[in-house]
Amino acid sequence: MSLESVKYERGKLEILDQLLLPLQTRYIKVQGVEDGWRVINKMQVRGAPAIAIVGCLSLAVELLKDNSLDKKIMRQEIEGKLNYLVSARPTAVNIKLAADELINLANTLSANEDVSPEEFKEKFISSIEGMLSKDIEDNKAIGKYGSEAILKNIEGEGSVRVLTHCNTGSLATAGYGTALGVIRSLHQSKRLERVYCTETRPYNQGARLTAYELVHEKIPSTLIVDSMVAALMRSRKINAVVVGADRVAANGDTVNKIGTYQIAILAKHHDVPFYVAAPFTSVDLSLASGERIKIEERPDREMTHIGEHRIAAPGIKCWNPSFDLTPANLITGIITEKGVFPPDRIKEYK
Amino acid sequence: MSLESVKYERGKLEILDQLLLPLQTRYIKVQGVEDGWRVINKMQVRGAPAIAIVGCLSLAVELLKDNSLDKKIMRQEIEGKLNYLVSARPTAVNIKLAADELINLANTLSANEDVSPEEFKEKFISSIEGMLSKDIEDNKAIGKYGSEAILKNIEGEGSVRVLTHCNTGSLATAGYGTALGVIRSLHQSKRLERVYCTETRPYNQGARLTAYELVHEKIPSTLIVDSMVAALMRSRKINAVVVGADRVAANGDTVNKIGTYQIAILAKHHDVPFYVAAPFTSVDLSLASGERIKIEERPDREMTHIGEHRIAAPGIKCWNPSFDLTPANLITGIITEKGVFPPDRIKEYK
Repeated sequence: MSLESVKYERGKLEILDQLLLPLQTRYIKVQGVEDGWRVINKMQVRGAPAIAIVGCLSLAVELLKDNSLDKKIMRQEIEGKLNYLVSARPTAVNIKLAADELINLANTLSANEDVSPEEFKEKFISSIEGMLSKDIEDNKAIGKYGSEAILKNIEGEGSVRVLTHCNTGSLATAGYGTALGVIRSLHQSKRLERVYCTETRPYNQGARLTAYELVHEKIPSTLIVDSMVAALMRSRKINAVVVGADRVAANGDTVNKIGTYQIAILAKHHDVPFYVAAPFTSVDLSLASGERIKIEERPDREMTHIGEHRIAAPGIKCWNPSFDLTPANLITGIITEKGVFPPDRIKEYK
Repeated sequence: MSLESVKYERGKLEILDQLLLPLQTRYIKVQGVEDGWRVINKMQVRGAPAIAIVGCLSLAVELLKDNSLDKKIMRQEIEGKLNYLVSARPTAVNIKLAADELINLANTLSANEDVSPEEFKEKFISSIEGMLSKDIEDNKAIGKYGSEAILKNIEGEGSVRVLTHCNTGSLATAGYGTALGVIRSLHQSKRLERVYCTETRPYNQGARLTAYELVHEKIPSTLIVDSMVAALMRSRKINAVVVGADRVAANGDTVNKIGTYQIAILAKHHDVPFYVAAPFTSVDLSLASGERIKIEERPDREMTHIGEHRIAAPGIKCWNPSFDLTPANLITGIITEKGVFPPDRIKEYK
């Protein structure tokens, strides 16, 4: 069974504490928006889709306990609490978009005189619950389309070896995952021989989180460090690379975790198909190409230390970009919840 | 002044303890072959050329204190002690080659009746001392030829940005270094704008050792993690890559630290010249190509732990090849102590 990073039933929310992974598996109760703000801010939950879902669900839990029967006050409180939740990780765009949508909904429901306060609350909570199930459904569709695309490239009923980068699984989404969802789907249909996951320096999401998910679900898997990708492709047949995306521009250029760009070049050199798995919400048509996306640079300490332990020579300067840009011409296909599309045609399908 | 990893004057040998780097700079006295064996075996000295030099110098120090005047006994003791030193790191080939050469010398001197026991000892010790100075001279020649080749590619008197991988400096050789010798030479002639060094997972020779040398010598330098190479080449003009070699085959195929092969592919993709710097002793004409060189696989623990600290999810399998093979067609030139040669012509010049 798929790892549950977010456990929810109406009125009750728990999240897996990612700060303790991979050494401890512990769930934290989230009893309202203050708890929600705290787990997001402390990075006990991470991954843009997961942050949005957990933030909004924390509001759903809090609303259910609220006995207010005044729609205006409810509307006002919802707006204030959503803005407060967004402030926990100001650069995570998904929670901002989700909050804007929910504020619109609250305005509409509040203005509609046919809607009683009870109905307002019910509809509002159901809408948040719908986000959770839609994220998982979309990921399952991505998994299905992605595994079909990868299997189409091979002859007969054989199984495949796939490489992935960073963490794009249950721990980064509401559940199932994007690129890791594709791998999960291949495994479920018994067509996955092995997945190779990169360590993903400097924050080690691959070694800590992806490896944790793969071990947890008994998916045949091997960890490599980031410098072994080409040697792996040369010494063993790799049938496909599949990675996630932080943002896809209108022309198919993709911004994702640092290291993605070079894996795409290495895949091209070795004739390995290179897929990006992302829901349509990650496609940003307002960006004509990826060239103008500003790449966040993170603190040196992420590279020079592991926890409190210094691993690099004191005094050395660092360059620590968090993401890189993979040009569309290196991407075989973008796997979405509606099918797999050539990168240069993604805007037609959005 | 260049970092001294091996301090030697007749009868006195000290080495920089590399296990304590980069956090502590401490020298260890080596007073004979038992000390020599121990510092090699414990990896307080590492790098194939450095191991050979330190091992042989430890014998020179011990011989000087020896008052024996019997050439046969001296010859016998020399052979036994050299074999003992070789056993400290059985896979390091340079010390084995050096030992074989010295055993031949001892046989010749012992058999020659015109050589007195005093002369035997003097000639033998001088021969070892000659290895130390030859290694440094060869590296300085590599530095000179390499920097000339790199500067020839650029217009005018501008300065260059260079990328290197792993550690090939004073800490891996008797002094000066191979690839890092080229960078040192560029810096001395004031033509180096900046060197970028990779972390070099999983053993972090770049972050620990190369960064330490660069900071020590105030060479303008920036550390990146191994997954940032392509992003660096795309965002800043890199004028050349220069790396070392563990072994070069007759056709120019090069075995070097894991990650070298993919940097060569990325360099080709971005039109960046890719150089290998290695003395002719690393060229092995008995190997027609690199394909049959067996690549050592190291323990998982190197990838899953930093010191005692576990960084990867428990239970994950690892693949940990220590080296990879860069085919000759990705190499612009091999920088040797006799000049820079196209890889496919290296055998003509050996």
